[in-house]
Amino acid sequence: MEKMKPRTLSGFMELLPAPQMQLERMMEILRETYALYGFTPLDTPAIESAEILLAKGGGETEKQIYRFQKGDSDLALRFDLTVPLAKYVALHAGELTFPFRRYQIGKVYRGERAQRGRFREFYQADIDIIGDGKLDILNEAEIPSIIYSIFRRFGLTRFVIRVNNRKLLNGFYAMLGLSEKSADIMRTVDKLDKIGADKVRTILLEDVGLTAAQAEEILRFIAISGSNTEVLAKLENWRGRNETFDLGLEELTAVTKHLGAFGVPEENFAVDLTIARGLDYYTGTVYETTLLDYPEIGSVCSGGRYDNLAEYYTDRQLPGVGISIGLTRLFYVLGEQGLLNPDLPTAPADCLLLPMTEDFSAAVQLATVLRAAGIRTQLYTEQKKFKAKMSYADKLGIPYVVFLGEDEIARNVCSVKNLRTGDQVSLPVDKAIELIKFGISALQSGGVILEK
Amino acid sequence: MEKMKPRTLSGFMELLPAPQMQLERMMEILRETYALYGFTPLDTPAIESAEILLAKGGGETEKQIYRFQKGDSDLALRFDLTVPLAKYVALHAGELTFPFRRYQIGKVYRGERAQRGRFREFYQADIDIIGDGKLDILNEAEIPSIIYSIFRRFGLTRFVIRVNNRKLLNGFYAMLGLSEKSADIMRTVDKLDKIGADKVRTILLEDVGLTAAQAEEILRFIAISGSNTEVLAKLENWRGRNETFDLGLEELTAVTKHLGAFGVPEENFAVDLTIARGLDYYTGTVYETTLLDYPEIGSVCSGGRYDNLAEYYTDRQLPGVGISIGLTRLFYVLGEQGLLNPDLPTAPADCLLLPMTEDFSAAVQLATVLRAAGIRTQLYTEQKKFKAKMSYADKLGIPYVVFLGEDEIARNVCSVKNLRTGDQVSLPVDKAIELIKFGISALQSGGVILEK
Repeated sequence: MEKMKPRTLSGFMELLPAPQMQLERMMEILRETYALYGFTPLDTPAIESAEILLAKGGGETEKQIYRFQKGDSDLALRFDLTVPLAKYVALHAGELTFPFRRYQIGKVYRGERAQRGRFREFYQADIDIIGDGKLDILNEAEIPSIIYSIFRRFGLTRFVIRVNNRKLLNGFYAMLGLSEKSADIMRTVDKLDKIGADKVRTILLEDVGLTAAQAEEILRFIAISGSNTEVLAKLENWRGRNETFDLGLEELTAVTKHLGAFGVPEENFAVDLTIARGLDYYTGTVYETTLLDYPEIGSVCSGGRYDNLAEYYTDRQLPGVGISIGLTRLFYVLGEQGLLNPDLPTAPADCLLLPMTEDFSAAVQLATVLRAAGIRTQLYTEQKKFKAKMSYADKLGIPYVVFLGEDEIARNVCSVKNLRTGDQVSLPVDKAIELIKFGISALQSGGVILEK
Repeated sequence: MEKMKPRTLSGFMELLPAPQMQLERMMEILRETYALYGFTPLDTPAIESAEILLAKGGGETEKQIYRFQKGDSDLALRFDLTVPLAKYVALHAGELTFPFRRYQIGKVYRGERAQRGRFREFYQADIDIIGDGKLDILNEAEIPSIIYSIFRRFGLTRFVIRVNNRKLLNGFYAMLGLSEKSADIMRTVDKLDKIGADKVRTILLEDVGLTAAQAEEILRFIAISGSNTEVLAKLENWRGRNETFDLGLEELTAVTKHLGAFGVPEENFAVDLTIARGLDYYTGTVYETTLLDYPEIGSVCSGGRYDNLAEYYTDRQLPGVGISIGLTRLFYVLGEQGLLNPDLPTAPADCLLLPMTEDFSAAVQLATVLRAAGIRTQLYTEQKKFKAKMSYADKLGIPYVVFLGEDEIARNVCSVKNLRTGDQVSLPVDKAIELIKFGISALQSGGVILEK
């Protein structure tokens, strides 16, 4: 038979078992932590009606979307988890209780030009808190505190969550008489990290049409820096000149104060006037998260406050705040940088059980006991030479091998070999379980990420 | 602004938070149990090249598949997890260690005619063990023992895993001189449950072209029943007349014996000569799983042994054994039958923390402590009347409300109200944590499924 050459589409991540295990561990941390903060898991279809997904319309999205016909239906794959959330909340509003806190970890699809580190299918891990008409400011501090907690559990310490407020920016532009241009200005300023101050100035002058004085004023404003307290103090100088600005400053001050109460240290959290987020629909607090040693990869986790989640589907006013971790890209970058902890076990099992008898019954029963004790056990019954069996455990990085022969069965023990140390002991089963569980728990104690 | 009516495509399951929580619990049981048996998690793209997915060709699949162009690429959504596994193993064979044991829980897509209980996007939860050239028979007993373990952890007891062997059937047909018709015969016999013996006879006579004597012989054979020991004993009568039959009988006997050693009780496991599985590629042991009280829904978990997983992509001989749970359908049926345990908490949090002070700092700190102790905590800071706050906890089914007012802060305690009993006590935080954790663990102790 002629064979078809197997291949995976470019731009689609497909991992070998060991890295997949690392990614699964990150997903488990995400699920656990989101749940600890009272978010409910949600799952929506990957396919939606194209007119629903594109209700907002807009250029880039429409070009990148996977859209196709099936029968008479015009369908598309979701390109983010926010639009499906908006649809979900509008559709089920009567059956939900607000504030509605949900997390969703799911694949989204964008047919971008294929390039290294860009994916066409990738996981986003989102949380949102959606209010009915109103939503307390405290939520805007809780969201980045959750991200802090997750990143620390990943093993990261060298990151900073940068926070700004669009009311503050809008109010400031209004002071300069530039309200109508505020969206354009923000989109431009948002590129500061990528293109630098000079190019931002050029765009502000040439494309947005500001005067040199206006551009300078904006560049001076976004250059305000220092500790969070210092930045907030400097901003006080503008207070009283514009209501929106004042409101934004109050919100930013409140978020900063609460973040301290949530236990987020100052080194992981910075008021940063340069970030604005390109998206139009943010209306207050905005977030970006940078890995300090890898600023060039940009934000790995972004979001903000919006006033009207589902305006394309319902008259109901649904303000909210949310953040999204670009999980596939983050994982890819961590792997590329060699930051995935190699000491963390990625084996499919904690223990390989080798029956040394013709009859496997005793081994099958032992496997059942080990599994009941929570030890991930693989029973190896292939007819291979002893060396090949040990090499199997070795190649997979399985930390323990348990032997069960006539002698062990007669003495009511099993033999446990620690493959990392080479130590081997014969023990009653309950003691063997203790030994293996203790060893595994020590091996598992590290973070997924090991910073250099 | 004109609103677009929000909707979800028909045939696509989208759950409200409470049932979603039940489904998540089932997925967690699947992940945990599969891992306990030494399977590694795998994740492959939902989109593949159409020619890869359709390498085998074939009618039904091709009609149901979601297939579309993007740029120059002919793409399709996966319709099962087996074809992507075959591609994965063929593509990465050099980097994998055999036997390769993987689990995968993922969405698959089939554009079937929409009807109640049929889904176009649905989860499959698969395990497979793939050998390199050879694979020990013990694996064929371990697979159903895993399913037994999962179903019991779901809370099910009234199910039976039915096991047969295609070598046995092929050998039997060979004795009748019907080898060339064996595939047609099996496909027909496989429908016995659905259409009954009379219709099977008619098809065997009219469509498959058997003589009346041959059809009777087959119907007599598949009518053999009794305990597993009795069925196996009756089959011994045919031994020695056909090698393939004898081999199948040995395999079936071995699987039955090992299943006992794995602790699967006879009431959950039956040798059943009527099942054959329609798919051509099974070559030995085959499985189907029936819910005893709902035989009409057919098999909820099926699989079997195959000799050549990836024959369309590689010359390498990769025999294996696998099984697939149709999770979305199973969940739908359990829900329809009212079998989802209503006593199991589906709230997004274990505890709702209500600050009774202007300043939220103490409450924020308490929330952090509760979460660090593993209590899923929602901090409620919306400005609502007390009654509305309590009603929020009530509607969501959150079991505990914790109050923190000036009085509690001064006395270094918090007040814990159990919403199910109405009891309220003031306790130091460490005692409050004990109380809540004890209560939650009691609430969580039931299975997801409560049989009637």
